[in-house]
Amino acid sequence: MKLNRSEQNPILSANPKNEWENMVVLNPAVIFDDQRQEFVMLYRAAGDTEKHYIYLGLATSKDGIHFTRQSDKPILEPDYEGADGGCCEDPRLVKFGDWYYLTYASRPYAPGRYWLDVPKPWIDPPQSGPAYLKYNNSATFLAITQDFRHYKKLGRMTDSRLDDRDVILFPETIDGKFVRLSRPMNWAGKGFENEKPAIWIAYSGDVLEWGSPALLMKGETWWESKKIGGSCPPIKTEYGWFHLYHGVAEKDDSYRVGAILLDLKNPSKIIARTKDPIFEPEA
Amino acid sequence: MKLNRSEQNPILSANPKNEWENMVVLNPAVIFDDQRQEFVMLYRAAGDTEKHYIYLGLATSKDGIHFTRQSDKPILEPDYEGADGGCCEDPRLVKFGDWYYLTYASRPYAPGRYWLDVPKPWIDPPQSGPAYLKYNNSATFLAITQDFRHYKKLGRMTDSRLDDRDVILFPETIDGKFVRLSRPMNWAGKGFENEKPAIWIAYSGDVLEWGSPALLMKGETWWESKKIGGSCPPIKTEYGWFHLYHGVAEKDDSYRVGAILLDLKNPSKIIARTKDPIFEPEA
Repeated sequence: MKLNRSEQNPILSANPKNEWENMVVLNPAVIFDDQRQEFVMLYRAAGDTEKHYIYLGLATSKDGIHFTRQSDKPILEPDYEGADGGCCEDPRLVKFGDWYYLTYASRPYAPGRYWLDVPKPWIDPPQSGPAYLKYNNSATFLAITQDFRHYKKLGRMTDSRLDDRDVILFPETIDGKFVRLSRPMNWAGKGFENEKPAIWIAYSGDVLEWGSPALLMKGETWWESKKIGGSCPPIKTEYGWFHLYHGVAEKDDSYRVGAILLDLKNPSKIIARTKDPIFEPEA
Repeated sequence: MKLNRSEQNPILSANPKNEWENMVVLNPAVIFDDQRQEFVMLYRAAGDTEKHYIYLGLATSKDGIHFTRQSDKPILEPDYEGADGGCCEDPRLVKFGDWYYLTYASRPYAPGRYWLDVPKPWIDPPQSGPAYLKYNNSATFLAITQDFRHYKKLGRMTDSRLDDRDVILFPETIDGKFVRLSRPMNWAGKGFENEKPAIWIAYSGDVLEWGSPALLMKGETWWESKKIGGSCPPIKTEYGWFHLYHGVAEKDDSYRVGAILLDLKNPSKIIARTKDPIFEPEA
């Protein structure tokens, strides 16, 4: 199986008119809104600034290809004095009843130009303080919305001592439990079944508080040799939960896409898994 | 042992000039600031409004009795769209190195006039959602500050499924661990050693993430028959950690003050405990 690119790409580009989105737009969440009969996209965006605060923007589409921006302002932004003070990144959306549940990654402070090795003078936390501050850790947060314009933030749903930004909720409860996938970066190597960061699964009756995650799958082939993590919420099919995930290769540091099928009643059980990537960067 | 009241009482009263503090001021945290050589008070305050948002105000004193307000605005307020969206209540302050650590109780939504049995039309959370929203639970949050005017909020430090608002940090780490007392309201009755809400102790290398609390002490006498909980941070003495706590009586629903002495090296060990209250309401 291989995926083909749309000729319409890119379907959304950085917007030079707004400072908060004039550098990059990437890593969106897209969901089909039954009531409005349209695709809704929350996209990660950042401007060309030193601190590099990261925001979510809103766009919609009737056909899933041509998207129109719905706001000149971020639709979700960091609480600058709060626990998600640095960024709102990598959204994922699922719907339970009348409410959309949004998971997003954040850090206490803006990450700065993290692709450059430059100091971040605005970060000066107590060195005796929590790991979350000291290392400006990524954690995953939960928010809920009904209209994609107003959100109630509910705080962290991962252990703040870990870098754990790839949380993905299943779109249904199973046996009354919420289910999630995540990729705790620190849970690899000595003392763990996986040498490199891998995908873990956890269950919760609550959605905000979670039991201990169990290892679901680890990298097996060359293109998964550096780490693997989930991508978007699993899709229910008659054959099982269909889930796209990403693998990163030691060889070229590239992200590639793979797919798994998880048992409908027991998503801790993997039914099938692609050996080769189904999508990868082109030169 | 009995405590005597100061003739200067009340040392702070509601302030009719500001809507946010024109109804009540209560439950303060007071710490002596070595550098400024003054007592610093963060006080809980609320106005006479339907939603009854709750704030912290700031006052200082040279003698610990005569306090002067330092701001016409709340010094800490709810993040209205966030996890501490309803209130900032019941502050406690300790100092680690150059930083003050503030624990405070909050809820996702304003509590309303909770002493009256009236509906709260602004609270309409998803019933399938987390307990924190569904029951508008009290949880305890952590923030840090260096000047009492600017705070970095760090999010929840208690399990959001519990009503757990009485978190008190010890002012020092012990064997490299942060130590806290708390009163998880739900951990009482069937399946627990305590019939009524009681004081639990927990340890953490991190201050934001905590291991499972263990029962420290439960109510024993008539004035502790409804529940007991900690009051202010323990004070280090040569005899042990001196801690004031509160007991509530079934008989009259009144709060009374007791004292305990905890082992300096192992604060899970109680050395001494008052049998009678050392302070109680007067008619």
